[in-house]
Amino acid sequence: MTLPNGLTPEAARERAARAYELDRKHVFHSWSAQKSLHPMVITAAQGCHVWDGDGNRLLDFSSQMVNTNIGHQHPKVVAAIQEQAATLCTVSPGYVNDARSEAARLIAEHTPGELNRIFFTNGGADAVEHAVRMARLHTGRYKVLARYRSYHGGTETAVNLTGDPRRWPNDHGNAGVVHFFGPFLYRSQFHATTEVEETERALQHLEQTIAFEGPSTIAAIILESVPGTAGIMVPPPGYLAGVRALCDKYDIVMIADEVMAGFGRTGKWFAIDHFEVAPDLLTFAKGVNSGYVPLGGVAIAPHIAATFDDRAYPGGLTYSGHPLATAAAVATINAMREEGIVENAADMGERVLGPGLRELADRHPSVGEVRGLGVFWAVELVRDRATREPLAPYGGTSPAMTETVAAAKAAGLLLFVNFNRLHVVPPCTITEAEAKEGLAILDQALTVADGHTV
Amino acid sequence: MTLPNGLTPEAARERAARAYELDRKHVFHSWSAQKSLHPMVITAAQGCHVWDGDGNRLLDFSSQMVNTNIGHQHPKVVAAIQEQAATLCTVSPGYVNDARSEAARLIAEHTPGELNRIFFTNGGADAVEHAVRMARLHTGRYKVLARYRSYHGGTETAVNLTGDPRRWPNDHGNAGVVHFFGPFLYRSQFHATTEVEETERALQHLEQTIAFEGPSTIAAIILESVPGTAGIMVPPPGYLAGVRALCDKYDIVMIADEVMAGFGRTGKWFAIDHFEVAPDLLTFAKGVNSGYVPLGGVAIAPHIAATFDDRAYPGGLTYSGHPLATAAAVATINAMREEGIVENAADMGERVLGPGLRELADRHPSVGEVRGLGVFWAVELVRDRATREPLAPYGGTSPAMTETVAAAKAAGLLLFVNFNRLHVVPPCTITEAEAKEGLAILDQALTVADGHTV
Repeated sequence: MTLPNGLTPEAARERAARAYELDRKHVFHSWSAQKSLHPMVITAAQGCHVWDGDGNRLLDFSSQMVNTNIGHQHPKVVAAIQEQAATLCTVSPGYVNDARSEAARLIAEHTPGELNRIFFTNGGADAVEHAVRMARLHTGRYKVLARYRSYHGGTETAVNLTGDPRRWPNDHGNAGVVHFFGPFLYRSQFHATTEVEETERALQHLEQTIAFEGPSTIAAIILESVPGTAGIMVPPPGYLAGVRALCDKYDIVMIADEVMAGFGRTGKWFAIDHFEVAPDLLTFAKGVNSGYVPLGGVAIAPHIAATFDDRAYPGGLTYSGHPLATAAAVATINAMREEGIVENAADMGERVLGPGLRELADRHPSVGEVRGLGVFWAVELVRDRATREPLAPYGGTSPAMTETVAAAKAAGLLLFVNFNRLHVVPPCTITEAEAKEGLAILDQALTVADGHTV
Repeated sequence: MTLPNGLTPEAARERAARAYELDRKHVFHSWSAQKSLHPMVITAAQGCHVWDGDGNRLLDFSSQMVNTNIGHQHPKVVAAIQEQAATLCTVSPGYVNDARSEAARLIAEHTPGELNRIFFTNGGADAVEHAVRMARLHTGRYKVLARYRSYHGGTETAVNLTGDPRRWPNDHGNAGVVHFFGPFLYRSQFHATTEVEETERALQHLEQTIAFEGPSTIAAIILESVPGTAGIMVPPPGYLAGVRALCDKYDIVMIADEVMAGFGRTGKWFAIDHFEVAPDLLTFAKGVNSGYVPLGGVAIAPHIAATFDDRAYPGGLTYSGHPLATAAAVATINAMREEGIVENAADMGERVLGPGLRELADRHPSVGEVRGLGVFWAVELVRDRATREPLAPYGGTSPAMTETVAAAKAAGLLLFVNFNRLHVVPPCTITEAEAKEGLAILDQALTVADGHTV
């Protein structure tokens, strides 16, 4: 029996051991203390599965970093990359290239409103950097409002917009960012008890923040249409429309960060489509080509683009609109259309994951809340349902969380984990059988979490 | 006759027209006013040549953005990308992957000193962002010294480190950057007349800047080992060793930016190797895989890496150590070794480009100076050799420059252009015949520039 990469288990194990040894010697890892790391080797992947260094197959409910929306190794995308590689791997951003042009056209077809000009970047962080720059230059203002409980990327501006503890070591108080609280009924900052109340009060809070910061100082409000790593808090009805109205009222640029939530993740092309709101700028990455080749970008409304009709936009990068990356985007978007992948994500969310997770919540005392859309779900674990005390502190972990995640993994399921939450974020291509298989493993793992409740 | 991409000229023209139309409608370009752009279409490329939308073949003396060090469409790199695409396109940075491990090992083999831990990014800008972050956290200091006449990238910190006019619209005086002047004898800031004097005075100036900024406030000094876009000013003997000594004296982290100068460009693996100096951090991108797949990174000295042994490094990105990108790096580095590509760059510089350009300088009154190493040469054009008045103002262009570049292009030669300079920066794989062909076209084009001298 060979793995999907054609290796025998023995050869794969040997190669994995070598990869591990070199990794520990030479690779510096993201967001980590380096010494205590014992990273898992991934030797192969296919669809919703990955294989570890020992040849174990795991069901990937994390989509890696929530990016393999189309699943691993989609044959159409792999073929498109191979074909583009044979033709033309790289051109300077100053030239025209057909892969880039077609990717821009396809993306513009799906973005909300009139966002039909695309600036390509290498990933989500630089997409956010450039969106903020465009907003600052368009308005002539500097300050940007961003949410607590958010993630916007790892570069200087992006990480300072971020509303999670990863910002702290990078925050010198000089990035021009002011944070506000968004709606999150389960842990309401606004003492609300209904969604209507939460929306109303969150918008009041935002407008008060604008008023006291000074509308004339604020270039942009940036927010994830549905916050991702921070907890998949689907905004209550009316909230994003309310943010749009405040941006219009005070001439503030609205930036929707769709790096994680975009390209099918929520069961629509973009998460903001659930709310019938169009931002002025929209950032994307990950799902645009499932991360098969590094790519991100900003979709730009005409009135913002026009600011740079005659005045040079002061930003760029060598790999902007990279042929290989954009060819992968073209193939991904076409495959998603042809195979109804966005519709599948919606269907799996409505018929299988949503009901299945709510059923688990009913039975497991460790589950405080489940929430989500499409293939984008958070399971909020608590020590005590009454007090909602989280199973790990904000910004940290706990033995309870570690054991629960390890139990899922031992049974063949990879989850995305943040603090006291398990995120169920499989590829948009997941089948009903795979979704149910994952839910059954999660059911077992949650008994471990239950053991840590009061 | 078909193009290297297998298309007939007619089919290529049709595809180019469509690409152009969509580009103008949907693509937002780097560093440009969007309305007046008339970008050239590139439909195919091979080795040192590209084909435009009309089927014209052009000799690429720009290496696109000075990144195709191995030339276009190197068969070994293309094959490696195709093979990796078939196996595993993407994994999360938290896992181990064999392509990433091997790329880290190979890079560490070539980096100077003990820089043997590699943090992978998507490109040069984020490599610089992360290098600065590492230096700040390692030292507990914030300020960074950077050169005027430099380029470090397009994201917020990187563009603020940059010492060229692209910084200006992004500079709000709050990035913690202080600029100093580096050595550049042709336009000496130090009233020097010899290289020895320039080195001595530039180091004095740097030490005075450190003294007056306060050594205890300075996290890092960043500089391109050989500044690239800013003018390929090869540092005079002793300068980089002097910077190293100042960094040691004041416990300041030395960051060598090798994004453009690294991986063979100067005829050595890294430009800093010419000076037998090892920095504490070294940033790379472009040449690491010739830009075939977006990739950058930071090579880290052990004492800096150790800062993050037990303390989490607060930075990361979804595509850090991307399999496709690192597989392309492995193939590129191996091909460069097997085919003596770095040695070829050195040889072409010493035997053909250097002597050839100096010979052109002798004959053309518009050439103020030629300078460089390997396949990394600047031709500084002046209106007046006596006053050294540049043929275009700092930060701008002029009809003289535009006409000269257009003449070269019309005769089949693409150059890299910045202000009053033509950069001769072909792939490291260039043959003697191609180098001579390009020099002959340049010779003709310089007669146009000559017509604009006093």
